[in-house]
Amino acid sequence: MVTGDVKLIGSWASVFVMRARIALNLKSIRYEFLQETYGTKSELLLKSNPVHKKIPVLIHDDKPVCESNIIVQYIDEAWSSYGPSILPSQPYDRAIARFWAAYVDDKWFIALRSILTARGEEEKKAAIAEVEGRTDHLEKAFIECSNGKPFFNGDHIGYLDIALGSFLGWWKVVELDANHILLDETKTPSLFKWAERFCNDPDVKPLMPETAKLAEFARKLFPKPQA
Amino acid sequence: MVTGDVKLIGSWASVFVMRARIALNLKSIRYEFLQETYGTKSELLLKSNPVHKKIPVLIHDDKPVCESNIIVQYIDEAWSSYGPSILPSQPYDRAIARFWAAYVDDKWFIALRSILTARGEEEKKAAIAEVEGRTDHLEKAFIECSNGKPFFNGDHIGYLDIALGSFLGWWKVVELDANHILLDETKTPSLFKWAERFCNDPDVKPLMPETAKLAEFARKLFPKPQA
Repeated sequence: MVTGDVKLIGSWASVFVMRARIALNLKSIRYEFLQETYGTKSELLLKSNPVHKKIPVLIHDDKPVCESNIIVQYIDEAWSSYGPSILPSQPYDRAIARFWAAYVDDKWFIALRSILTARGEEEKKAAIAEVEGRTDHLEKAFIECSNGKPFFNGDHIGYLDIALGSFLGWWKVVELDANHILLDETKTPSLFKWAERFCNDPDVKPLMPETAKLAEFARKLFPKPQA
Repeated sequence: MVTGDVKLIGSWASVFVMRARIALNLKSIRYEFLQETYGTKSELLLKSNPVHKKIPVLIHDDKPVCESNIIVQYIDEAWSSYGPSILPSQPYDRAIARFWAAYVDDKWFIALRSILTARGEEEKKAAIAEVEGRTDHLEKAFIECSNGKPFFNGDHIGYLDIALGSFLGWWKVVELDANHILLDETKTPSLFKWAERFCNDPDVKPLMPETAKLAEFARKLFPKPQA
């Protein structure tokens, strides 16, 4: 099958880039990975995403697509006959997947990041409680959406798995930083087992960054603020 | 055709509710409009959107769908054979429409709202400049997307028209409040003409709130802060 010319501008450490890469793997699309250097922005990036100037950018036959969840939907639609469908097939299930994917970015991720930027122990404790509450919401969402199947969408990795699962590397890094288990086997058992399955999936495993390497990068990105 | 039982929880003044209503009109779906009272939240709303507790919520055969842009996509997909398609048909065009719709909410709207909440003239001036810069982006996007056609998607109102156009009532209210033209016929002529077309569309016109009534509501929602 002809996929056209496919490039992805990204970085190994980015959750949002990983989303696009997992979607490309699921569809077995070969692509050129153009790594940005941390702290700089390439000419191609500035030209391809002049509005936000952010990775990832997928370039398909010279046409750029920006924003990770939009890229994942684009990959699903542009190569609809390649591999499994990433979005659920039913409109209602699609709406639910989109709802929770937006929740992951707008609510859960914001809370997760605030652990890394917390000033002092009190602020960190509050941020941890916030993440745990929001992870409980996601545990319930998993139970409802998956209906006993291994992934949010059913039998294979789909849109919401990608949206949340791409955070798993950073999730561990934040756990280490906070010295606190955030994805708890007892409190959120379904999500805990889902995370193991997700990380071990052959389309995901080669992309999941090593925790130690990512933790080192995190120290550069989020230098410890003075308490 | 059978549409099932369709209800919409909303309010006359909400941009986000208007998005769902325009989409329902485009698809000629009859629905029951359940008005929320400002300052309170009904039992049905709390039950239907327990995560965000926000309008709009579309209830289709007792199943709730939340978040305005997700509702619009749901309406397009659930009633795909009813009326024109709301999302563009080509994957690339869909990605572009989704990109700018996200820009409208995440960048442009945030700037527009900050005019109403600005403290003092300096802050207001900065907020106005921000909105104007972002409206320029949207003018360019309109020219690129519409390609000489009357709407962003082409010949009929689509996803991005709905996302931006639902703000037109509030846009005027903010212009009055700021005593400054924000949608300028000279600076952004394409968008200016598009706005007229959008407001006069038969599926939109009955829903567009009167500026005076909306301005009165805005004074309640955004009481003047002390400078």
